[in-house]
Amino acid sequence: MEKLEHIGIAVKNLEESNKLFAKLLGKSHYKIEEVETEGVRTSFFEVSGIKIELLEATRSDSPIAKFIEKKGEGLHHLAFSSIDIEDEAKTLSLEGFTPLSDQPKKGADNKRIVFFHPKTTNGVLVELCQDIK
Amino acid sequence: MEKLEHIGIAVKNLEESNKLFAKLLGKSHYKIEEVETEGVRTSFFEVSGIKIELLEATRSDSPIAKFIEKKGEGLHHLAFSSIDIEDEAKTLSLEGFTPLSDQPKKGADNKRIVFFHPKTTNGVLVELCQDIK
Repeated sequence: MEKLEHIGIAVKNLEESNKLFAKLLGKSHYKIEEVETEGVRTSFFEVSGIKIELLEATRSDSPIAKFIEKKGEGLHHLAFSSIDIEDEAKTLSLEGFTPLSDQPKKGADNKRIVFFHPKTTNGVLVELCQDIK
Repeated sequence: MEKLEHIGIAVKNLEESNKLFAKLLGKSHYKIEEVETEGVRTSFFEVSGIKIELLEATRSDSPIAKFIEKKGEGLHHLAFSSIDIEDEAKTLSLEGFTPLSDQPKKGADNKRIVFFHPKTTNGVLVELCQDIK
């Protein structure tokens, strides 16, 4: 894992949360992006080189809708950038961390991503991500 | 808020989680510290300049014990460094974020800290922290 790339936060209402985090962080989000395949609409803030991604569900079967139903709004995942996502996902898999997809999927922010099951990562949903060239 | 200083993760067993995160992050924790007043034992990892703090409860009335009972192990808080914690806590308080203490308290890692109630911060427990000189 190269670096902490972003922190994902599950929210019910992206517009309201954009206002709240703008007050909290002292700066506005710099973009909004929808990832239709994942059923999420996201907004991005930046603090000292780390991105904070707010995630709102766009449909009821979205992983974000399920997360909020179970745990409420709040911290959702940590994403670490990788310089070779296939290789690193395989290595982590062999070490006992269970990937949630066989292959990297298309995520927000021009990235390929692999999540690991929080049951294998101490309750923390961990994402590996790599920029699409 | 100056920068993202660390990410707190609630764990049941610090020794086991230290091993798990060493495998996940590819490096070991660099210190362990107990904060008796908060009822926690902590360990610290570092990834690309961001600290990851694992927190284990040392008694049953510890906030970490209560958190795990309610939500399970996992992401617990985000901490942002401040260059003037009293002033910034006051400003955030006036903007509607509710501090959990009237004054900064002594935290781990040689810091004074103020938490804000997650009900006012979109479900995210937010900490302001400042190094003790």
